[in-house]
Amino acid sequence: MNEPLKFPTSPSAPGSGEYAEHADDQTLRRLCESEHPADLAAQFSELELEQAVDIFSRLTPDCCADVLVHMDYDDQREIAARLPDDALAKVIAKMSSDDRVDLIQSMPDERGETLLHHLAKKEREDILRLSSYEEDTAGALMTSEYATLSPHLTARQAIDKLRLEAPDKETIYYAYVIDVERRLIGLVSLRELILSKPGKRIEDIMRRDPICAKVHDDQEEVARQMAKYDLLAIPVTNGNDALVGIITFDDVHDVIEEEATEDFHRMGSISPGTGPEDLVDIGLRDASSWLLIQKRLPWLLALVFMNIFSGAGIAYYEETIQATVALVFFLPLLIGSGGNAGAQSATLMVRALAIGDVMKKDWFWLLGKEIGIALCIGVCMGIAVSLIGIFRGGPDVAVIVALAMVCVVLFGSLLGMSLPFLLTRLNLDPATASAPLVTSMADIGGVVIYFGIASWYLNLYAAA
Amino acid sequence: MNEPLKFPTSPSAPGSGEYAEHADDQTLRRLCESEHPADLAAQFSELELEQAVDIFSRLTPDCCADVLVHMDYDDQREIAARLPDDALAKVIAKMSSDDRVDLIQSMPDERGETLLHHLAKKEREDILRLSSYEEDTAGALMTSEYATLSPHLTARQAIDKLRLEAPDKETIYYAYVIDVERRLIGLVSLRELILSKPGKRIEDIMRRDPICAKVHDDQEEVARQMAKYDLLAIPVTNGNDALVGIITFDDVHDVIEEEATEDFHRMGSISPGTGPEDLVDIGLRDASSWLLIQKRLPWLLALVFMNIFSGAGIAYYEETIQATVALVFFLPLLIGSGGNAGAQSATLMVRALAIGDVMKKDWFWLLGKEIGIALCIGVCMGIAVSLIGIFRGGPDVAVIVALAMVCVVLFGSLLGMSLPFLLTRLNLDPATASAPLVTSMADIGGVVIYFGIASWYLNLYAAA
Repeated sequence: MNEPLKFPTSPSAPGSGEYAEHADDQTLRRLCESEHPADLAAQFSELELEQAVDIFSRLTPDCCADVLVHMDYDDQREIAARLPDDALAKVIAKMSSDDRVDLIQSMPDERGETLLHHLAKKEREDILRLSSYEEDTAGALMTSEYATLSPHLTARQAIDKLRLEAPDKETIYYAYVIDVERRLIGLVSLRELILSKPGKRIEDIMRRDPICAKVHDDQEEVARQMAKYDLLAIPVTNGNDALVGIITFDDVHDVIEEEATEDFHRMGSISPGTGPEDLVDIGLRDASSWLLIQKRLPWLLALVFMNIFSGAGIAYYEETIQATVALVFFLPLLIGSGGNAGAQSATLMVRALAIGDVMKKDWFWLLGKEIGIALCIGVCMGIAVSLIGIFRGGPDVAVIVALAMVCVVLFGSLLGMSLPFLLTRLNLDPATASAPLVTSMADIGGVVIYFGIASWYLNLYAAA
Repeated sequence: MNEPLKFPTSPSAPGSGEYAEHADDQTLRRLCESEHPADLAAQFSELELEQAVDIFSRLTPDCCADVLVHMDYDDQREIAARLPDDALAKVIAKMSSDDRVDLIQSMPDERGETLLHHLAKKEREDILRLSSYEEDTAGALMTSEYATLSPHLTARQAIDKLRLEAPDKETIYYAYVIDVERRLIGLVSLRELILSKPGKRIEDIMRRDPICAKVHDDQEEVARQMAKYDLLAIPVTNGNDALVGIITFDDVHDVIEEEATEDFHRMGSISPGTGPEDLVDIGLRDASSWLLIQKRLPWLLALVFMNIFSGAGIAYYEETIQATVALVFFLPLLIGSGGNAGAQSATLMVRALAIGDVMKKDWFWLLGKEIGIALCIGVCMGIAVSLIGIFRGGPDVAVIVALAMVCVVLFGSLLGMSLPFLLTRLNLDPATASAPLVTSMADIGGVVIYFGIASWYLNLYAAA
C-alpha cells in the first residue's frame, strides 16, 4: 500500500500561513478522494486547532461531513464551534441523520437552534424527531435514511428504485417492505433481489416478520440482538409497528465497546457519567483532571466511611490483639484474601450477566456451585497460610489463621457472587458491585471473622 | 410478530418418543424455513441431549449447518460427537469455511481426521490450510468464501458473476479485485456496481489499495481496524500480498466481546485460558467447578505469598503498634484506600490501553496528571479520615492518619497507573495489572508508609 498522503503542513513546523501556499484546493480535493475519512480525521487531530479549522473550511461539505463523524468527540466539538453557521449547516446537511443529531446535541442549545434555522424544513423536522428519544435507546441510535419498498413491486423495479435512492441511504443491502400505513411487514436483502427472477414480486421474495427493535429498547439489548442474528442492520418500529428508522452494524460496534467500558469503569468504582460530561465518550486521554476527580472521589470517600466498621470491629477485639500482637501480622493477608476471592467472583458474575451468559434465575444453583468452589479454594489457601502461621506465630496462630482463611474466602466469594445478582434484581447495574466495594465489604467481614475465631480459640485454650 | 414455532415436544414432558410421532419431516422443514437458526439453536439447548440429536439428525444438512454455528460451544460439541460420521460430514460440507474449521478443531484429533476423509478434496485442503494459522490471528478467523473479480470485467458482467456465485459466498456486498497472481489490487462494493453504468470496467470503478489485514495480524487489531473504517468485511492477504480470505463483521462482534471478557477476567485476577479449556469460550454457566478453581486459585495463592511482605512490615513496627494500639483501628481503612485508589487508576488505564485511547508514549504526561489528581483526592480523603481520627484516637492519631492517607493514595494511584504501562512495555497484557494485584501491592506500601509515618511522628513527639 502507498504511503498515505499528508496534509501539506507538518506539525513540527507549524508556522502559520506556511502550509496555505501549498495547500491549494486541488491538493485538498485529491486528499479527500484518496484517503479514508477515518485517516483524515486522525491527521486533523494532530494539527493545531487554528490550522485544522482553516483546512477544514476549505474542504467540500461532503468531505467535511465524512471526516467530522470519524473525529473524536472533543475535536469534533472544537472544530464545529469555530465554523461559521452557514458553512456548518452545509456540512450538517450532508451528514447521515444519526450523526447529525449527535453533533447538534453536543453543542450549546443556542448554537443548535441557530443551525436548525439554516437547514431545510424536512431535515429540521427529522432532527427534532430523532433528538426526542432518550439517550441509550434504539431511537437515539437510529438513522432515518433507510430504503423501503412496497410489497407489489417486482424484483427488477425494486432494484431500480434502490439504485435511484442509493446515494441518500445508509445501506441498500437491506430494504424494508412496508404497507400503506408504514407498518413493517417484511425484509429483502439486495442479495435476495439479485438472485430472484426479475419479474417476481417483493411479497413473494421477502422474509415476513423480520427481527426488529422498538424505539424505546435499550441500545445494549439491540446490540445483543444484532450480534445474535448476525444482522447488518435492524429496523426500528414505534408503538404502532410503523417503521421509523434503522440501526446499522457500525453503530453497534461503538455500543458494544461503550457498554464494556462502562462496566469496566464501574467495576473499578469509577462513577458512570451521563450527558456531555461522560468519561466513556471523552476518553481518558482527553478527560480533564477535574472530571476524573469527580468520577473517582465520591466512591473512595464512601468506601472510607464503610471502613469505619472494620475499625470498630478491631476496637471490639482490642484485648485479644493486645494479648497476641502476632495476630496483626496476618490481618492484611486475611482481609486481602477475602477481598481478592470476592473480587474474582464479582468479576466473573458481572461479566457473565452483562453478556447474557447467566440469568437472574440461575442464582440459586450458581450459589451451590460457588460454595463448593470457594470451600476448595479456601482450604488450599488455609493450608498455605498455616505454614506461614507456624513459622511466624506458632501452632495456635497457625490453626487460627487457617480456619479464618477458609471462612473469609467463603464469605468473600459468596458476597462477590451474590451482590451482582442482588443489584440486578433491584434493577441496578450489576457492575456497581465493583471490586473495591466487594473488597471493602469483605474487609469488614474479614476483621470480624478473624478476630472472632481468634478470641474464641484463645479463650478455649485458656479455659483448657 | 407471531409466536415462534416450537419443536413438537415440550421440555416439561420429555417422554422419549412422544415427540417423534408429531415431528414429521414436513413440520421440521417448515420450522427450518420460518425460524431463524439462532432461535432454533436456543430451542435445541433446552432439549434433552438424546431428543436433540434425534431431531437434529432429521433436519436437512443446510439447516443443520445453520443451526450448529449458532449453538454455544458445549451444545455444538455434544451434538457433533453423537452424529454418525457421514451425516456430520454432510453438515460440515454446508458450513462456511471458518465455522467448519472451528468445529473440527473442537473435536478429538482422531474424529477430526476421520471426518476429513469424508469430505471432498477441495474442502479438505481448505480446512487444513485454514487450521494452520495460529489462534487469535486474522488467519484463524477468516473464511475462504469470498467473491473475486478481475479488473477488466464490466459492471454488468461483474454483477452476473456475483449472482451466479452468491449462494457459495459469505458476502457479495464487497467483491475483491485480484490480478493473475491473486494479488489484491482493489475493492468494489455491490452498491458501487449497481450505481455504475453497466458497460464501465471494474478497474475504473474499484477503490485501489483497499484496507486489508495480514494473516498473522492479531484479531483484536483487525477488529479495531474494521470498527475504525466501518467495514462490512476486511480482506486478508499473505506475505506475497495474495488474497487468501476475508473476515466479516459478524465474526468481529464475537472478537470484541471475547477480548473485553478476557480483559475483564484478567482485571479480576482470573487466569486467561488457551485452547479448548478457555473460560471465555465456554462461559461461566457451563464451566466446570474444576476449571474455575484452576483459573482462580493460582492468583490467590500468589497474592497470599505477596502479602507475607505486609506481615513483615507490621512485624518491623511491632513496638510502635504495642505502644499505640489505636493505630491498628485505621490499618484496614488506610491500606484499603490505597488499594481502592490504585484499582481505580489501573481500571482506567487498562481499559484506555485496550481500546487504544492511550498509547505507551503517553505515560509521562499522564503520570504528571495522575500526581495532581491523586494529591487532590488524597487531601480530601485525608481530611475525611482525620475527623474520624480525632474522634477515635485523639489529635496525634488524626495527624498521622491524615498524612498517611495522602501518601497511601498517591502511592496506590501511581502504582495503578504505571503497572499497566510497564506490562505493555514488556509486551505483556496490561490487564494482568489486575485490581487484586494492585490492591495487594498497595497493601504492602500502605503498611510501610502508615507505620513509618506513625513511628516517625511519635518519636518526634516523644523527643519534644
